Amino acid sequence: MRESKLNFKKVLLDYKNFFELNINDFYIDGPKNMIETSNFVMSAKGKRVRPILSMMSCTALGGKIEDSIDVAIAIELLHNFTLVHDDIMDDDNLRHGQPTVHEKWDIGTAVLTGDSLLWLSLHALKNIKKNREKIILSFIDAIKLVCEGQAYDKMFESKENITLDEYEQMIGMKTGYMIGLCSHLGSICADADLGTQIKMQNYGLEIGKAYQIQDDYMEIYSNQEVMKKSLNSDVELNKKTYMICLAIKNRKFDVIDILKSKKCSLEKIKDLRNYFEKTGIKQQTIKEINKTFNNANKILDTIKFKVNYLHEVNRYLINRKY
Amino acid sequence: MRESKLNFKKVLLDYKNFFELNINDFYIDGPKNMIETSNFVMSAKGKRVRPILSMMSCTALGGKIEDSIDVAIAIELLHNFTLVHDDIMDDDNLRHGQPTVHEKWDIGTAVLTGDSLLWLSLHALKNIKKNREKIILSFIDAIKLVCEGQAYDKMFESKENITLDEYEQMIGMKTGYMIGLCSHLGSICADADLGTQIKMQNYGLEIGKAYQIQDDYMEIYSNQEVMKKSLNSDVELNKKTYMICLAIKNRKFDVIDILKSKKCSLEKIKDLRNYFEKTGIKQQTIKEINKTFNNANKILDTIKFKVNYLHEVNRYLINRKY
Repeated sequence: MRESKLNFKKVLLDYKNFFELNINDFYIDGPKNMIETSNFVMSAKGKRVRPILSMMSCTALGGKIEDSIDVAIAIELLHNFTLVHDDIMDDDNLRHGQPTVHEKWDIGTAVLTGDSLLWLSLHALKNIKKNREKIILSFIDAIKLVCEGQAYDKMFESKENITLDEYEQMIGMKTGYMIGLCSHLGSICADADLGTQIKMQNYGLEIGKAYQIQDDYMEIYSNQEVMKKSLNSDVELNKKTYMICLAIKNRKFDVIDILKSKKCSLEKIKDLRNYFEKTGIKQQTIKEINKTFNNANKILDTIKFKVNYLHEVNRYLINRKY
Repeated sequence: MRESKLNFKKVLLDYKNFFELNINDFYIDGPKNMIETSNFVMSAKGKRVRPILSMMSCTALGGKIEDSIDVAIAIELLHNFTLVHDDIMDDDNLRHGQPTVHEKWDIGTAVLTGDSLLWLSLHALKNIKKNREKIILSFIDAIKLVCEGQAYDKMFESKENITLDEYEQMIGMKTGYMIGLCSHLGSICADADLGTQIKMQNYGLEIGKAYQIQDDYMEIYSNQEVMKKSLNSDVELNKKTYMICLAIKNRKFDVIDILKSKKCSLEKIKDLRNYFEKTGIKQQTIKEINKTFNNANKILDTIKFKVNYLHEVNRYLINRKY
């Protein structure tokens, strides 16, 4: 068991290094201002969960890692497009331990940098050799859903009564589909049969859901030093997180009083921590995260892999601290 | 001659109406906030030059108007994506006679509205029946070039010595390629042979170049009421227009003194008018516009059309007042 853990850590690092090597020169020829800002964004070392999941989904099903690298690059670029634009919208000033683009430069530069990361992601897809059109069409759906999910997220800020269903639909669009896209496209790159492709997409959708609820949880229970990003915008912008929606579902509308109080964000976060603990919402949330990862594992159990380290990926994600 | 002019006016109106009819319900299902802002942008009646050019290029070569409608919609949406984001960058507050999105709502909403128009444009391409992958790949190039062109435009604001070559390269990316895309994709929708496709693209590139120089010219010699958009941002942001680059080429660096003076934008525009007149730059610019439209006509002369109203399109564009 211990040895397998060590092995997986090494495998994970190998995949990450392979990705870093390939993303290294993603934009070297073009206007200097955009090369500078785009490279600033992409060189910030995130966890690279999405490209690793894409590549591992491909190799787990018998494909070569090289078969999925363009998809991996495209998805990570698309993800970073959303980060740069979302940071403008939420006025967040810290991301991956460094200032956000609109904070370091200005809003216009950040708008254009996001746009550039988007075209770069589409451009990366042009290099794909097999199933290119199918992959591009799924990718277009991802851009649609991530934009619409963000629009709902923004709309929910000014609404009080958001149901868990509405919340789940929103995060499915904003986060879930893109993580589902990783495992889905990874399986297409491996030339998996259609049934397996669908299972792999569903597996990714579960992971995506769990991942977003974890994010919501950590925005309350982690801290800026560990997360390396601003954490108070959720509270400041009145974001409808899993825990807020759960409180509302349980008719615990006093959570709204905490959000609406005149206290500063840090104090509100403290109050929310106590509140979620007292009402059992903290425990219910942890339970939901575990249940969702468990669903993902169950889907994996039905797929015939050549190499199976995706259960380990789930274990790695369930234990993530940022 | 007079009758042909009347006929063309009617044809133009028919194409415009066909487009308006089809763009009418481009976004009815999704988050209300984005449906509202996207429809606000798209319902502002612009000239619709790009979709009309796409559709007429298709029918002129024997295709049906319906064959090119998805391309026409996609290009107009892409164009409006650039307008919404560019207006944020240039802090313009008027467009098509109505407030810009960041002016009417806020910057975050404008960022997301631009992003939505972009995915909607990609989404429109999914409906294409023939040559879809080829069209999507050209479209991805257009997104790349329009973003890079905008980046150069932004970069040139803080540079003094921009050559006419650099200017032409920049507008070729920012404006030319997308207008070239209209006639190019229109010809693909008509199933034209490869040689004709290339000629049609080159024709559009010339039109695009002439169109941008006209825009530069009108920003100085027209007025806000006629143009229905803010006109002082070029001067305020120190944009390198055709006339500025021509002055610099002619070693007339005193144009920089006008731009750098402490006068308000309106007075600067007045000074520039006098200056361009005195130095002959105004006349040289008109000559360049006419020459470029003439090049476009010459390319048209080499193509065998089923119906030829593209010369009339050129005449219409050369006489445009906004």
